[in-house]
Amino acid sequence: MAGTGWTTVNTRLRQVAGGGLLDRRDFLRLGAGFATIAAAGQMPIAQAQGAASARPAWQRMLGQADLPYGQPSGHEAHVQRHLWDTTPETAGFAGWHSPIQHLRGIITPNGLHFAVHHNGIPDIDPEGHRLIIHGLVERPLSFDLARLLRYPLVSAIRFIECAGNTAANALSPTAMDADAQSLSGQVSCAEWTGIPLRVLLAEAGVKPGARWVVAEGADGGSHARSLPLQKLMDDAVLALYQNGERLRPSQGYPMRLLVPGWEGNVNVKWLHRLEVTDQPAHTKDESGLYTRVLEDGGLLQFAPTMEVKSIITQPSGQQLLPEPGFYEISGLAWSGRGGIRRVEVSGDGGRSWAAAQLQSPVLDKAFTRFSIPWHWTGGRHLLMSRAEDCQGQRQPDRKAWKAQYARHSFNHYNAIQAWRVNRDGRVENHYG
Amino acid sequence: MAGTGWTTVNTRLRQVAGGGLLDRRDFLRLGAGFATIAAAGQMPIAQAQGAASARPAWQRMLGQADLPYGQPSGHEAHVQRHLWDTTPETAGFAGWHSPIQHLRGIITPNGLHFAVHHNGIPDIDPEGHRLIIHGLVERPLSFDLARLLRYPLVSAIRFIECAGNTAANALSPTAMDADAQSLSGQVSCAEWTGIPLRVLLAEAGVKPGARWVVAEGADGGSHARSLPLQKLMDDAVLALYQNGERLRPSQGYPMRLLVPGWEGNVNVKWLHRLEVTDQPAHTKDESGLYTRVLEDGGLLQFAPTMEVKSIITQPSGQQLLPEPGFYEISGLAWSGRGGIRRVEVSGDGGRSWAAAQLQSPVLDKAFTRFSIPWHWTGGRHLLMSRAEDCQGQRQPDRKAWKAQYARHSFNHYNAIQAWRVNRDGRVENHYG
Repeated sequence: MAGTGWTTVNTRLRQVAGGGLLDRRDFLRLGAGFATIAAAGQMPIAQAQGAASARPAWQRMLGQADLPYGQPSGHEAHVQRHLWDTTPETAGFAGWHSPIQHLRGIITPNGLHFAVHHNGIPDIDPEGHRLIIHGLVERPLSFDLARLLRYPLVSAIRFIECAGNTAANALSPTAMDADAQSLSGQVSCAEWTGIPLRVLLAEAGVKPGARWVVAEGADGGSHARSLPLQKLMDDAVLALYQNGERLRPSQGYPMRLLVPGWEGNVNVKWLHRLEVTDQPAHTKDESGLYTRVLEDGGLLQFAPTMEVKSIITQPSGQQLLPEPGFYEISGLAWSGRGGIRRVEVSGDGGRSWAAAQLQSPVLDKAFTRFSIPWHWTGGRHLLMSRAEDCQGQRQPDRKAWKAQYARHSFNHYNAIQAWRVNRDGRVENHYG
Repeated sequence: MAGTGWTTVNTRLRQVAGGGLLDRRDFLRLGAGFATIAAAGQMPIAQAQGAASARPAWQRMLGQADLPYGQPSGHEAHVQRHLWDTTPETAGFAGWHSPIQHLRGIITPNGLHFAVHHNGIPDIDPEGHRLIIHGLVERPLSFDLARLLRYPLVSAIRFIECAGNTAANALSPTAMDADAQSLSGQVSCAEWTGIPLRVLLAEAGVKPGARWVVAEGADGGSHARSLPLQKLMDDAVLALYQNGERLRPSQGYPMRLLVPGWEGNVNVKWLHRLEVTDQPAHTKDESGLYTRVLEDGGLLQFAPTMEVKSIITQPSGQQLLPEPGFYEISGLAWSGRGGIRRVEVSGDGGRSWAAAQLQSPVLDKAFTRFSIPWHWTGGRHLLMSRAEDCQGQRQPDRKAWKAQYARHSFNHYNAIQAWRVNRDGRVENHYG
């Protein structure tokens, strides 16, 4: 639309920080006279009459039949998960990334929820699956699914993030040119429904001296993690449903552990055994991959809380801004410690910051969607977001994050993400 | 488990109303000694050792590969939408019902959202689709999708209900033996993301004297409805995303109107035209099917607010309780006027009522999940739920509802649903 006059900045729009960040209220109240910038989003109908006068084919015929289980449009086939690397899908570590740069709102649809499999997806017959609670309990118990479905259920919208999400930014000495999905797509958010673990543990009767619970999956290879009993009694759930329907096989069908705010792999999928103990089991999964090595050579073990983090998803890596004009900057923030208190956005590489709008409801240990309007005049910009959670925790910059850990450490990376907008409109990963 | 002693009622559990309704707090606090009833949900591990000692096949081999776009388990293939009747799917009215008796929480997954099509699903090329705003405006405008995606977006979790949901209970002189899906499955709830209509209308510049907007879809047959301008300026949204991803074709891809709390058909799918006018257009869709005939022969037109309503989904019609013991009664409540204030449940056909637990967050014009624990001793019971919304509106009983309308009226049926639990555990639709 360059040259039509529609992209001229309306000088009555208030800037709230440098780099073109605008006051959202101007866009939501009437009569603000913002048409001259927002109108980059449309064209006068006179120009469009050629297109409008001919009715497209789909308006001139009956449509197609629906499906008993609906599917996305074929035009959205590019919106799918992809594997981070070329490791085999069914042996060893397979990490499926969610296309966060194509999603809006806070709910991740079930077909696009990120997933990590250590041993592929077991083909479990739900009739033959059992959940066993044993160890330091008064009454060892074995539950089948039909009985579990009769228990009192609770629901909550919660994120899950892989410990290794955004590993490339932790490890790569220069910023890898990749999209948001590849860099940070191992996080998702859904409404989970299940049985509070404390109900099942109370039923088994936890003995004095019990401090830990070893949770084991029914996948070949038996992924297992040790969890403090206190956390399971606090807010952990035996999840049976995700976004209304029963869990997908990829998410642990017929049941998984949901441990809100803690790294993905402790949310044990295909859960079949909880052993109550007095100490952690030091399973292969917790002694190896999910231990962090500190800068001084010390080990950080059993520290699974995912720290406060945020990412701008629109615009983000490898996207192309087609022309100067108005855009909405939108992104996601989350914290394993609770709710998000505040997200700030910078359009000038951190020299100035403005508070983004948080979409309500802001829920504990869930995605919070933030946004701020932005006028891109065609220059080079560094876009950044930084979140603060309800405990006052804030994201470090990359240098500060790196200083804490050994050079090869990559788990729990939560540094501020910067996206560079080039003059040609191309967006690239950047170490700010 | 009859005969094992595990299903004996624990006399320390408090009843909160007749018919076996229990105090939920007993189930969520520790050491309540509720194992004797809740343990109907499990068996002592000694009895389960035969099953537990042999590791099932899926624990002894690597699992399967994942999919770029995930799908439900094959074991859940019975959880799907179905057509209410045998009308052709692509011509005339096709109503797909959501399997609400199989779902939990408040989010309906996109593949299972109810849908009504008047003319089938148009196969729209999003590149060729336009939204036109014209009529009583200063600047007629035509928007393509790429430009709309740059606008400020808002998200909200909202229900949509077909005007004709639960028509069988309105029309059938005796209670039809059917499941919850068939009777009341034309309602769903999702997180919708899109552009506030007031932003687009302000950009076009609404002229003095404008009072109505005619919204027309791009389906063959051009489903169209007239909407008061005030409602569109208040909270209506041009929806582009549903539960995070772009709309499904069945839900209006690439764009639909979301008119929170109003009957489904005014949430025009495949929206391509908004004509601002001074009076309603009296389209075929609003003059015919969606006009209500009152008891005295008068017509109720342009009254699209869906009134407060609730339904127990577990247990519900045609389900079978396998044995006496503990169950959770769970259901959904919603109101087009705002949030749900209170849901009460009766286990004895309305002689006594107890307040159900409402799952937080309780959101405006969204599903609210309610639940209450229940001990079924094997007798005949009438289970009922009644909801009250934030405006103090309450559900009528069937007789009071019928008294308002002509005998053949069926739209906006919101009377109290009763389920009869027979002695053999079978649950049936019942006119209470």
